[in-house]
Amino acid sequence: MTLPFKIEAQAGTARLGCIQTAHGAVETPAFMPVGTVGSVKAVPQDVLEELDAHIILGNTYHLYLRPGHELVRSLGGLHKFMSWDRALLTDSGGFQVFSLGDLTKVSEEGVTFRSHLDGTSHLFTPERSMEIQIALGSDIVMAFDECTEHSAERERSRTSMEMTLRWARRSKEYFDAHKHEVPWTQIAGSTPATPALSGIVQGGMYADLRRESAERTVEMIAAALEVLPKDKPRYVMGVGYPHEIVQYAAMGVDMMDCVLPTRAGRHGLLFTSEGRMNIKNARFAQDQGPADPKCSCKVCARYSRAYLRHLFVAAEPLAGLLNTIHNLAFYLDTMRAVRHAIRLGDLSGLLSASVSLA
Amino acid sequence: MTLPFKIEAQAGTARLGCIQTAHGAVETPAFMPVGTVGSVKAVPQDVLEELDAHIILGNTYHLYLRPGHELVRSLGGLHKFMSWDRALLTDSGGFQVFSLGDLTKVSEEGVTFRSHLDGTSHLFTPERSMEIQIALGSDIVMAFDECTEHSAERERSRTSMEMTLRWARRSKEYFDAHKHEVPWTQIAGSTPATPALSGIVQGGMYADLRRESAERTVEMIAAALEVLPKDKPRYVMGVGYPHEIVQYAAMGVDMMDCVLPTRAGRHGLLFTSEGRMNIKNARFAQDQGPADPKCSCKVCARYSRAYLRHLFVAAEPLAGLLNTIHNLAFYLDTMRAVRHAIRLGDLSGLLSASVSLA
Repeated sequence: MTLPFKIEAQAGTARLGCIQTAHGAVETPAFMPVGTVGSVKAVPQDVLEELDAHIILGNTYHLYLRPGHELVRSLGGLHKFMSWDRALLTDSGGFQVFSLGDLTKVSEEGVTFRSHLDGTSHLFTPERSMEIQIALGSDIVMAFDECTEHSAERERSRTSMEMTLRWARRSKEYFDAHKHEVPWTQIAGSTPATPALSGIVQGGMYADLRRESAERTVEMIAAALEVLPKDKPRYVMGVGYPHEIVQYAAMGVDMMDCVLPTRAGRHGLLFTSEGRMNIKNARFAQDQGPADPKCSCKVCARYSRAYLRHLFVAAEPLAGLLNTIHNLAFYLDTMRAVRHAIRLGDLSGLLSASVSLA
Repeated sequence: MTLPFKIEAQAGTARLGCIQTAHGAVETPAFMPVGTVGSVKAVPQDVLEELDAHIILGNTYHLYLRPGHELVRSLGGLHKFMSWDRALLTDSGGFQVFSLGDLTKVSEEGVTFRSHLDGTSHLFTPERSMEIQIALGSDIVMAFDECTEHSAERERSRTSMEMTLRWARRSKEYFDAHKHEVPWTQIAGSTPATPALSGIVQGGMYADLRRESAERTVEMIAAALEVLPKDKPRYVMGVGYPHEIVQYAAMGVDMMDCVLPTRAGRHGLLFTSEGRMNIKNARFAQDQGPADPKCSCKVCARYSRAYLRHLFVAAEPLAGLLNTIHNLAFYLDTMRAVRHAIRLGDLSGLLSASVSLA
């Protein structure tokens, strides 16, 4: 099943759209908070709902290792397990296998790696990645990819791209044969009743290889996604700073995810309409103003910079939660502003305002 | 000013009452969550309001060291600093000086100690403790006490009690002369417009010394508290397990505080109507039921034991928050049940039910 996606307005290369999943609609361009192991770190699900997040991301590698996809399946899938009725996207596990797994070995079959948790040996193949994501009950499943290192040379990038394309075919074959096995198909009456598979464009930092990869990924999983550009949602994984997500949206990207707002929040870095703010800075010790005077989130409505600084300096657990709530509000508000600007037909003001904060 | 306290009903030795503070009424018997450094660990203030906590405790020792009582005063007091409009009680700092301070030395003047944070040297006297608590803007200020070690022998206990009584007199003198300096007297129109001072009964584990201490504390701060028993609220500090707080309430205790529900929550120990539950236990891995089937808190309404166990095992920051919210709900619900039973005139059912969980 392809991902139902409707483009509602355009402004230059930017598109305003809507992705229909079995767990609700997702307005695009969308920023997806990362819920690595079934929790957007520190944030209760009712607060994510208040923040009006319509989709969050789960990490296949982490959830496979702990609590395990079979356990999650037996409990009705990740939505039910974590009490989240809205959309979920899972990544393929490829990136984490390469960045977190130990002693990683790649072959045509897949990737063997040792768990960063307990050193046990595991094999991820395209089929295994699909099986895990389907067991988790993801709404949007990502094809299994080999993740090229940033510094890869051209020949290495080409080899990796070729492998990712062969793995995309295998992902699609397994996905098509098993997509009806998601735990929620038995219980949900929603439309669409199966998840959707998304391809991954590889090719290192070489623009022409990325282009070729995009074109050939399109050929490989044509039945699922038909053509990557124009009429299908485009998802750039793992980006970025607030000004970057505005720029990507302006270029025509529809979906993004990043740990930055959550991770930075836990480390005391706040994103605001006035730029980045390290809340532990002594100059905030007596600052009675909100973190961001232009922000209407529940943290800015209630707490002062002085209090947020105190919580962070005293290593109070509440610090991480409040900083994270504000940062997520700032990212989600930024995307709301982007969508509003596209509807009005002009992103230029938002672009120049956001670039000035870079 | 004495603490306005009205007893509304009695059941045996237990009393149902109401303490009027400048920041609202507190129904008693009351359990007070501990907000050590201006935050009930992990819990946002709006959740404390949802839990219907009417009073929380702040620790004078911690707040004095960080962020500092002068800073808190300059920002309008602890209520404003932490955005908490309801009642606040501060302890005297005595207990933490003895339990956390290094190289503690006691003299007639007071206690010198080194900060557990940075080793700097400080002196707490009865006057200093009052000054700090008034600067914080506490609604209920505790007299400065020497904290006798649990194993103290009789002569040591007597000496300590005598010192605490002399310090109580000094506390009261300073308090009476400066109580109008609380930061909120200038801004609040509420009644009463000053905080109240509470005496502390010492005397180690010897019942007769505790009795003498109680009687003599009464003499010392008579104008503030008149007589400890019967018509004034009685506060037992630092207790206890759920069955203990029910027993204390039955004996006629009106106020209690303890870090147990918050600290235990962060360590995965949940208090429930079925007894204590270590959520990391493997038997909860597939348990789809709520932490406590009889609890109506927002955690039990939404999340399963399996999910709470997963969060704890995966060391997710959300674990501490959800466990803490449930535990606080359980403690506050327990006190609500106690108050209801007193109103109905019979605590026996609640007492035997709670003891069976001990």
